[in-house]
Amino acid sequence: MSLEDETLMVLKDELVQAYSNGDVDNAAFAERLKEIRSADIGEMLDVMIEDDDALPAAIAVLGTLSSERAANVLGYLAGYNQLAIVAEQQDSQVLTLLEEMSADERADLFNLLGEDRREALLRRMAHREREDLKRLSSYEEGTAGAIMTSDYVAIASGMTVSQALMRVRQTAPDAETVYQLYILSRDGQLIGTMSLRQLMVARPGAIVDDIMIKEVISTWVGEEQETVARVVARYDLLALPVIDAEQRMVGIVTHDDAMDVAESEATEDFHKGMSIGALEDGVSRVPLWSLYRKRVFWLVLLVFANLFSGAGIAYFEDIIAAQVALVFFLPLLIGSGGNAGAQAATLMVRGMATGDVGVKDWGKMLGRELLVAGALGLTMALAVAPIGVMRGGEAVAIVVALSMVTIVLFGSLMGMCLPFVLERFKVDPATASAPLVTTLIDASGVLIYFSIASAILTSVAV
Amino acid sequence: MSLEDETLMVLKDELVQAYSNGDVDNAAFAERLKEIRSADIGEMLDVMIEDDDALPAAIAVLGTLSSERAANVLGYLAGYNQLAIVAEQQDSQVLTLLEEMSADERADLFNLLGEDRREALLRRMAHREREDLKRLSSYEEGTAGAIMTSDYVAIASGMTVSQALMRVRQTAPDAETVYQLYILSRDGQLIGTMSLRQLMVARPGAIVDDIMIKEVISTWVGEEQETVARVVARYDLLALPVIDAEQRMVGIVTHDDAMDVAESEATEDFHKGMSIGALEDGVSRVPLWSLYRKRVFWLVLLVFANLFSGAGIAYFEDIIAAQVALVFFLPLLIGSGGNAGAQAATLMVRGMATGDVGVKDWGKMLGRELLVAGALGLTMALAVAPIGVMRGGEAVAIVVALSMVTIVLFGSLMGMCLPFVLERFKVDPATASAPLVTTLIDASGVLIYFSIASAILTSVAV
Repeated sequence: MSLEDETLMVLKDELVQAYSNGDVDNAAFAERLKEIRSADIGEMLDVMIEDDDALPAAIAVLGTLSSERAANVLGYLAGYNQLAIVAEQQDSQVLTLLEEMSADERADLFNLLGEDRREALLRRMAHREREDLKRLSSYEEGTAGAIMTSDYVAIASGMTVSQALMRVRQTAPDAETVYQLYILSRDGQLIGTMSLRQLMVARPGAIVDDIMIKEVISTWVGEEQETVARVVARYDLLALPVIDAEQRMVGIVTHDDAMDVAESEATEDFHKGMSIGALEDGVSRVPLWSLYRKRVFWLVLLVFANLFSGAGIAYFEDIIAAQVALVFFLPLLIGSGGNAGAQAATLMVRGMATGDVGVKDWGKMLGRELLVAGALGLTMALAVAPIGVMRGGEAVAIVVALSMVTIVLFGSLMGMCLPFVLERFKVDPATASAPLVTTLIDASGVLIYFSIASAILTSVAV
Repeated sequence: MSLEDETLMVLKDELVQAYSNGDVDNAAFAERLKEIRSADIGEMLDVMIEDDDALPAAIAVLGTLSSERAANVLGYLAGYNQLAIVAEQQDSQVLTLLEEMSADERADLFNLLGEDRREALLRRMAHREREDLKRLSSYEEGTAGAIMTSDYVAIASGMTVSQALMRVRQTAPDAETVYQLYILSRDGQLIGTMSLRQLMVARPGAIVDDIMIKEVISTWVGEEQETVARVVARYDLLALPVIDAEQRMVGIVTHDDAMDVAESEATEDFHKGMSIGALEDGVSRVPLWSLYRKRVFWLVLLVFANLFSGAGIAYFEDIIAAQVALVFFLPLLIGSGGNAGAQAATLMVRGMATGDVGVKDWGKMLGRELLVAGALGLTMALAVAPIGVMRGGEAVAIVVALSMVTIVLFGSLMGMCLPFVLERFKVDPATASAPLVTTLIDASGVLIYFSIASAILTSVAV
């Protein structure tokens, strides 16, 4: 990655320069850093560590910040840059940072540490912190539990409005959001919710149980993060409460974390659409070996799948020898089928991911695709027919046009249906990638084209 | 689209049935609807209108809700379903709904109406409402202005904390979010911001100017919505203030609207990645004619681009005639190059969209791709070489393996570079779609393959 912001760029270069010369005016830098957002400082440190190889300078910059700010900035860094930094620090420094981090980011960093380091740090924590951290870091990656935070405002059932307001004021500095309050029964079950807005306009003496909303949208701690993000988006929530199997509230997923999840899930789907496995980080920083592994699997598999196209061609060797002009149209026909099919597949995969298309819509979608693909095939046949006449005469033009309609129609329907079939067999529909769909259509296209050619050209006896 | 939720499905069927029979117990339905979220009722009405053709029933359902709730539900409906409903309603009914809708959704619906209807409605509005609506509906689609709302809490510079708190309580029911407050100078310029959390813990007599944050992140009213969504995500904002050319505050973009924008922009990029133009609605409901138009343009263009591959094959007709086994490997080789190239292009396009890759990273990315694509090409060459020996002997195996490495390397580098080139010439990098990239690589692949074949097979005189 690189810094797109000029000001940040300049500051970063000055920092790297100054720290490498050992000629540093910490106070002056601290003053300039004050005006920069934590997210931006985080990005700057990422670049310092990765591109400039200036880890000591990055650590020194963190050192000029207050521990609260430093923890905040650390949370914005890429995982292994966080790891690189804490590897250079004493346990006591790390403990201070961990303490100031938000609960979910703390658990994420903690999960990256080696077992020995984790043990050493846990031993020095207070009992309650230790249990909270152990619990949050125990959830499986990709679940609600792994992205939630335990910093939320819980209100005990039976409290008055003014008691609840007092509680909000007390917890304000710690909680991730104070704007949505959760009312818990004595044994920790989530029984209602209420916005701070509602609380502020309510009569101070009222009991929260009487004004709270009892129909709470919540999610289970083991729910997939993708689903969690969709619920947050669908109901325009600030935060979604997370409950365990006993209906006890264990955390919240905030809107900003849901947005991050939605973005990374979209990226994963983009990559899957080209048969690339899920990358553990952005393409600019993921290790090359990992990038290779995530790309090679399907590429090699499809090499073998492509043998079917070759076999098809070999089978029709005679007709090709008789009419060499046919080979001229081969890339065009199978390419067109592949393109139309990849379009149809992508429309369905994305429609399913956004909830626009459900499995039940299969029949309706098939009808629609039939009409659209038919029209597309006809248009493309009209486009290619004159070229057929020019290269091989009328008979070839008819073969090519007829093949185009058939291949585009067949390819589109196959591309459209594949995601539904995969979903039916509990495979991620995004597996219906462009490379897979085009490879399948290539092979079918060869068969369709040369079958039509054999039938027509043999009968007119060219 | 279809309803995935069983309960909603059942209720919907009952509603459609009851209203078509004219045998309706409105009170009973109203009771059941009470427990359902507005977003869910909205989805149910969409399905009623589109799949069941039951517009009158949908309108009747809206009629059983309070006007505030009805307006809220209406905001969740697809644009032309909103339009279909208001087309059946009197101006006075529409005015009531518009009044209760949030300012941004009101402007969106208003923009869909015909000129006559708009004029008629505007005439019956109060001056201030009319001006606000005219202003909000005047911004170009896809800009910050078009997605912002004017329902925010403005605090006049010089107010005390307790005055500001009073103001929050007064505006609470209307504003989209009361949790972020904006401090405006006398001429409407945005001079600071403050969270409700900060306000609640501040000393009641303090002046807001003394505790507000002066470094406000804001956006310009004409900024692209994609950029707006990225700023909201990057800085984890609840809402982003929008200012006009004179630094006057004109609205806010809330986190939920930013999330919707991020999703629809991702969908657009998914479609672009397969050479499909931006659809005006989800794939399940966009008109077929529109779907055809958005897909046909590139498909036909690429038919002609594919002619180059055909011409390449025609040029090498002699070598093909001499070694028909070569054609067997053609789909495999150009297919592999296309797949690897499409992967490389997609990695860059998505990296650019998420901000992970910048134009400046070009050199670094090229170096990385060189290594990864080289390794991929070698792996695939090893996979295909034995088949080469089997089908055509050692010389053919060498030709095929060498072509594989060259085509995969060339294809990957081309796929990787294309988005950068497009960006350089101010064209959306997402134009480097899989169909475009594979078509370009197909043509190059034909040339590379048969050139290598000519050179090697002629020299060994097969």
